[in-house]
Amino acid sequence: MYAVIMAGGSGTRFWPRSRESKSKQFLNIIGRKTLFEQTLDRFSPLVGRDNLYVVAKAGQKSQFRPFSSRIPRSHFIWEPMGKDTAPCIGLAAVVLDRSEPDAVMAVTPADHLILDLPRFRKSILAAAQLAREQDSFVTLGIVPDRPATGYGYIQIDGSQGSFYGVEAFKVKTFAEKPNAETAAMFLASGDFVWNSGIFVFRTSVYLKAVEEFLPDLYDGLSEIRGALDKRGYVRAVQRVYRQIRSISIDFGIMEKAANVLCVRGDFRWSDLGSWEQVHKLSEKDAKGNAVSGDAVLVDTTQSYVHTDGGVVAVLGLDRVVVVQEKNVTLVCRMDRSEDVKQVVERLKRKKLDSYT
Amino acid sequence: MYAVIMAGGSGTRFWPRSRESKSKQFLNIIGRKTLFEQTLDRFSPLVGRDNLYVVAKAGQKSQFRPFSSRIPRSHFIWEPMGKDTAPCIGLAAVVLDRSEPDAVMAVTPADHLILDLPRFRKSILAAAQLAREQDSFVTLGIVPDRPATGYGYIQIDGSQGSFYGVEAFKVKTFAEKPNAETAAMFLASGDFVWNSGIFVFRTSVYLKAVEEFLPDLYDGLSEIRGALDKRGYVRAVQRVYRQIRSISIDFGIMEKAANVLCVRGDFRWSDLGSWEQVHKLSEKDAKGNAVSGDAVLVDTTQSYVHTDGGVVAVLGLDRVVVVQEKNVTLVCRMDRSEDVKQVVERLKRKKLDSYT
Repeated sequence: MYAVIMAGGSGTRFWPRSRESKSKQFLNIIGRKTLFEQTLDRFSPLVGRDNLYVVAKAGQKSQFRPFSSRIPRSHFIWEPMGKDTAPCIGLAAVVLDRSEPDAVMAVTPADHLILDLPRFRKSILAAAQLAREQDSFVTLGIVPDRPATGYGYIQIDGSQGSFYGVEAFKVKTFAEKPNAETAAMFLASGDFVWNSGIFVFRTSVYLKAVEEFLPDLYDGLSEIRGALDKRGYVRAVQRVYRQIRSISIDFGIMEKAANVLCVRGDFRWSDLGSWEQVHKLSEKDAKGNAVSGDAVLVDTTQSYVHTDGGVVAVLGLDRVVVVQEKNVTLVCRMDRSEDVKQVVERLKRKKLDSYT
Repeated sequence: MYAVIMAGGSGTRFWPRSRESKSKQFLNIIGRKTLFEQTLDRFSPLVGRDNLYVVAKAGQKSQFRPFSSRIPRSHFIWEPMGKDTAPCIGLAAVVLDRSEPDAVMAVTPADHLILDLPRFRKSILAAAQLAREQDSFVTLGIVPDRPATGYGYIQIDGSQGSFYGVEAFKVKTFAEKPNAETAAMFLASGDFVWNSGIFVFRTSVYLKAVEEFLPDLYDGLSEIRGALDKRGYVRAVQRVYRQIRSISIDFGIMEKAANVLCVRGDFRWSDLGSWEQVHKLSEKDAKGNAVSGDAVLVDTTQSYVHTDGGVVAVLGLDRVVVVQEKNVTLVCRMDRSEDVKQVVERLKRKKLDSYT
């Protein structure tokens, strides 16, 4: 099995810790290691150094230099720009398909949090076996522990049996992020799981689906395939990427494909989409405060405070996020932390881009 | 007339802008100039350079160096430590009395805000005339514009007529900071004014009252008087200050003296006791926010934001104070801003004194 880490994210959700020049995957938001390192650690023992690939943006090359001892240089696949997950995975499939036709590949975001590694590994092994034996797309579903409205859901159907102790199902439908009422129904029904964004399949299965559902992308990938190992490769990728449209694997492939299975992963997972989620997953004191760095909290509860140096004091507030990084401070109501991007947009309009 | 600026304050009310090493009077909290400079500008035209004195702590000498061109070196009166206003004014009275017995002196805090200078000057001139003609203590009362609970009040009685267009009264009583109900009664009655902490009197009147009401202090001041212009002066002041107790002019003298008058000043005045007061007095935008420095406020109202560099972003909060100064950030509910000292105490307990 091959692992492909999709590490092209930029994102502003964790501003001011994440910046245009430092994406979320390179932050140690939870735990000592960065999310990218945690993803490496998660997949290295499963596939080995030789089968680990990273797809990332060419403009961020320098940020991956510290990992040159863990990932061979030829295993970085550079995209000239982001076009969402379907082209990203297509490019990786073409590259892997050359060295091992019909290889099984697991694709994963680089910046999610997974806390129960043994159970996670069993889920991946189960998915790989299914992908190999049944020529199917296999998604990793997560057993929900609350009616979350921030995740997509997968409705599962008839059991396919158990593999490595993990039960597998047919996928009935993919559901977009629901409202609170619908999320409660999903949770109560027992046949919905969260869509983790981790998928396992054979390169051939993916490329065949692209040919069927995204013919324009298929043409582009064929052009790239023809340029592999040749001088014009980089220019071919650039040409193709300029033309193809952005589209996700979920929307472009998974929702249309017939042969989609799902393994039901029972481990703690989060896409870490906001400071509020980080607060939920952090260790907290008796007043519900999670603090990293020097801080003094007086009559303050259920809050998240981070400082990279100096000190932050909070007095008389509940459910706030305060993040101080270098010369930037964010102060935010906890339940508005998903709107941090509005702050970043406003900074750009005010010609304060240097802080974004 | 002489002016004596009491500039010995340290205070933590404006932490983190004020620090142990930088007291409130040296901040430009409102306006471009520091409060100390504003006080100098207020009194210089009234008394002239030669009649301007400053009482301050010996440990803060270096902070007054930038003003050496505006105040003669011999006009700084250094206290070895703070013992509140009665000893501070006593020391100044002894010094002034030597060069001009029976001089009229105006004493003023260094760190208050006064916005209507022409009216202020008329009030001081009126007070000086009364102090000179009637050998009285004259206090500057301020016509209240709201039932403030953060100020002391003066109850005024029978009019003494008008001087420079400012009406003068006898003082009936001094009242401590009232609760909300009492403050509303004070305001409705029309015969209460705020106690500004600015007083005008002859040095002889003050020293006679000290002899009567604070005999211990009088003995100490006599010892200092005997050492004036001699070698042992500094040591005499140190010896006396170690022994005398801290006591305010209000409590120690004014509340006991019989010959106390009050001029009713009708100008905008504030003792700037908290960030909330600064917010009230600052220019605000349509959403009630006062901002100094680069900041982005999204869905935020009635807030005060200051940054000395870098940028502060506030998202989804109302009535908060955010003050970022060097490597320290304070985030505070507006109506808790009087409790900033609790933060400073907590920092000391946590051995984070370097931030105080």
